[in-house]
Amino acid sequence: MDPIVIVGGDAAGMSAASKFKRERPERDVVVFEKGEYVSYAACGMPYYVKGDVESLDDLLTVSPEEFVEERGVDLRLHHEVVDVDPEAREVTVEGPDGRFTQPYDQVLIATGAHAVVPPFEGMDLEGVFTMHSLPEAEAVRDYLTAEAPEAVAVVGGGYVGIEMAEAFAAHEVEVHLFEMLPHVLAPFGETVAEAVEDHLREQGIHLHLDTAVERFVGDTRVTGVDVGDEVSDVDLALVGVGVAPNTELAEAAGVELGETGAIATDAYGRTSRAKVFAAGDCAEARHVVTGDPDHVPLALTANRAGRAIGQTMAGEETPVGDIAGTAVVKAFDLTAARTGVIDEDRAREAGFDPVSVTITAASRAHYYPGAEELTITLLGDRDSERVLGAAMVGREGVAKRIDTVAVALHEGATAHDLSYYDLAYAPPYSPVWDSVLTAAKVLDGKLG
Amino acid sequence: MDPIVIVGGDAAGMSAASKFKRERPERDVVVFEKGEYVSYAACGMPYYVKGDVESLDDLLTVSPEEFVEERGVDLRLHHEVVDVDPEAREVTVEGPDGRFTQPYDQVLIATGAHAVVPPFEGMDLEGVFTMHSLPEAEAVRDYLTAEAPEAVAVVGGGYVGIEMAEAFAAHEVEVHLFEMLPHVLAPFGETVAEAVEDHLREQGIHLHLDTAVERFVGDTRVTGVDVGDEVSDVDLALVGVGVAPNTELAEAAGVELGETGAIATDAYGRTSRAKVFAAGDCAEARHVVTGDPDHVPLALTANRAGRAIGQTMAGEETPVGDIAGTAVVKAFDLTAARTGVIDEDRAREAGFDPVSVTITAASRAHYYPGAEELTITLLGDRDSERVLGAAMVGREGVAKRIDTVAVALHEGATAHDLSYYDLAYAPPYSPVWDSVLTAAKVLDGKLG
Repeated sequence: MDPIVIVGGDAAGMSAASKFKRERPERDVVVFEKGEYVSYAACGMPYYVKGDVESLDDLLTVSPEEFVEERGVDLRLHHEVVDVDPEAREVTVEGPDGRFTQPYDQVLIATGAHAVVPPFEGMDLEGVFTMHSLPEAEAVRDYLTAEAPEAVAVVGGGYVGIEMAEAFAAHEVEVHLFEMLPHVLAPFGETVAEAVEDHLREQGIHLHLDTAVERFVGDTRVTGVDVGDEVSDVDLALVGVGVAPNTELAEAAGVELGETGAIATDAYGRTSRAKVFAAGDCAEARHVVTGDPDHVPLALTANRAGRAIGQTMAGEETPVGDIAGTAVVKAFDLTAARTGVIDEDRAREAGFDPVSVTITAASRAHYYPGAEELTITLLGDRDSERVLGAAMVGREGVAKRIDTVAVALHEGATAHDLSYYDLAYAPPYSPVWDSVLTAAKVLDGKLG
Repeated sequence: MDPIVIVGGDAAGMSAASKFKRERPERDVVVFEKGEYVSYAACGMPYYVKGDVESLDDLLTVSPEEFVEERGVDLRLHHEVVDVDPEAREVTVEGPDGRFTQPYDQVLIATGAHAVVPPFEGMDLEGVFTMHSLPEAEAVRDYLTAEAPEAVAVVGGGYVGIEMAEAFAAHEVEVHLFEMLPHVLAPFGETVAEAVEDHLREQGIHLHLDTAVERFVGDTRVTGVDVGDEVSDVDLALVGVGVAPNTELAEAAGVELGETGAIATDAYGRTSRAKVFAAGDCAEARHVVTGDPDHVPLALTANRAGRAIGQTMAGEETPVGDIAGTAVVKAFDLTAARTGVIDEDRAREAGFDPVSVTITAASRAHYYPGAEELTITLLGDRDSERVLGAAMVGREGVAKRIDTVAVALHEGATAHDLSYYDLAYAPPYSPVWDSVLTAAKVLDGKLG
């Protein structure tokens, strides 16, 4: 029987390969990866630049050797799949030894995403970086070390922008953060964004909100950021304005894309073409609250979907799982987290009648030393009384508290349900009514 | 109309009184409290003895004045209800000005629990304490300050024992902890218990497991603990061997008790007698996993049930909510947490076919500084594949991670469901697959 072929050796691809081999060790799995790294922790790159993580090797979760020797995966580094032919069931590959075709029984497209390169003048100047791969992270750190810049521009106030602002600040350079929208961290809502912005300013970050970068200034090296009416002097610029799915290969194979621009998939990760799956940053997934396809390129989604598809390809049909868009980000001493739908307009578009509450509570019993303030916004639907989403920000206890709401979303819980869960309490860890319960009580009251 | 009468002014009673008045401000609520404190944070007492909490006043969450003036509750301190007559619908009260009867429309019995006093010789010696009220906590701290003991005995390795061992150790006294069972923290299971025991020893606590105290030694003051074949010299002894529900009043009123010995209640907190409710440490509640009545005297349960009963008495029927027995305890630098059913024998008694897994994972991404080990035990049922319970122990990220499982229990989730929740990930807070997800994957594999 022809092997399983996997296009792309990162989270989704390697999860699928590993799971398939565990279920069907007698079958062959070939993974084609165009680069030299597999299964690396992209989310750790800001901490490598910051210096918290010493070596890039620390970010490799499983080495190529382990995949080959311990998991029995036929891994081909530096091999790029240039064509998928669903009729002939074969892929065309360009490798170090030339071009060849590889027949497949089933194929998984796990081509990931790429950093969006904005159409600024000066993107090609020395000292201007995007950061979506280990070599790019290495280049940023090397430049930082070699050139010792005095001032740095971070363009984009999303996860990467916030984390990189912290990373650069650790090197005691002046950091300018540019965001074209009125707030950073748009998916987290205004309350969280404002708390993060205040904290970034406290930490000495120069925030330029509502500010579109027009071009980078410089001859061969970047020397400034021009926002139209003002030029800020910088010696390094990091552009993190989002990612876009790598869909060229899929499109060329006649695979349908969804409305988000990522590859459309069913509950099992199947695309519109027979025997062709897609997963990870290149693919859509179903949102657990809206029920609609969505594109939220995050690590867990890729890992989960890859694993499920590996199992499905091995013969045991396994849904890839819904996504809630759960996310958390560290911004210096603050933690911001979100899950589900927290934007009221988006809730209305999805057919809900949104009701929102925001409360401030404590991370520990009020009398216990070190209690920190925690702000929670909960969104609910007036008719069904379901919880739609949550956003939180605080210095302590945020990251795993959001998970309580995430599980509630997966289970379609109402605000009342959420307010009556038996959660853990001891003075060092929470008030008697955990702050999530308190927020749910307030939402329940407003809905009832 | 006759007022609502509430017997006992702690968590359940004051929650009910406050909620009722909020819903029906025109009606009267009379609370009889035999002591002088209401609504105090009993769970904070160990931290008062430790010195983390400076004043007992810090442990009062709402003052008597606030209940009276802001919430409109007719609160009578130093008034003991000595009889409840469900036929006549009146209570008999002994107050500072003598005995009187008070008619009621509906009554809530919220008499709480008392510390079990073991039948040791020497319980009446000076320097021997139980700790179930603020005055007792004050007495312990005063004795500690005034007598500067060199060695202390803690009898009982439950929450109170563990927390008090930490409290005493902070005063640099020798601490002996006696537990008659083979392990401390029985409800947390063996894996957690052993981790806690190792850590207690590291912290210099002298653990005496499998060791029944026979008597306290001393003339007027305690000078030793006799375990039969050995006497340990101590200058102070703290006995925390559990609590028992205060049911005398209910029994005298003809209210039925359940098998646990606490007051039997229905889903709305109603007892066997008309118009008589019970809540808090004196009452049973339904366990969300077994569906059976259980007695887990914890703060949140009392607060939740009180609040729900206040709402029900006000005319809007509200279930008190199921309990999962979710609990967390700090033991020096470790956190231990549990939820649901984790004892295999108990699971079998409840009709399940238990399957257990224990995994060790990290609290953060493996490469992120400060990542700590986390041990998780998950119990599942072979037939239904439902998750039955979890226990966790580690130095970081334990307290709120248990809540993820607690919500799953409330929703009757399977191991597969739990393994596919979209939980938060960023390197400073968790691995890509949160340790709860990893444990659920392993359990799912073992069940499948």
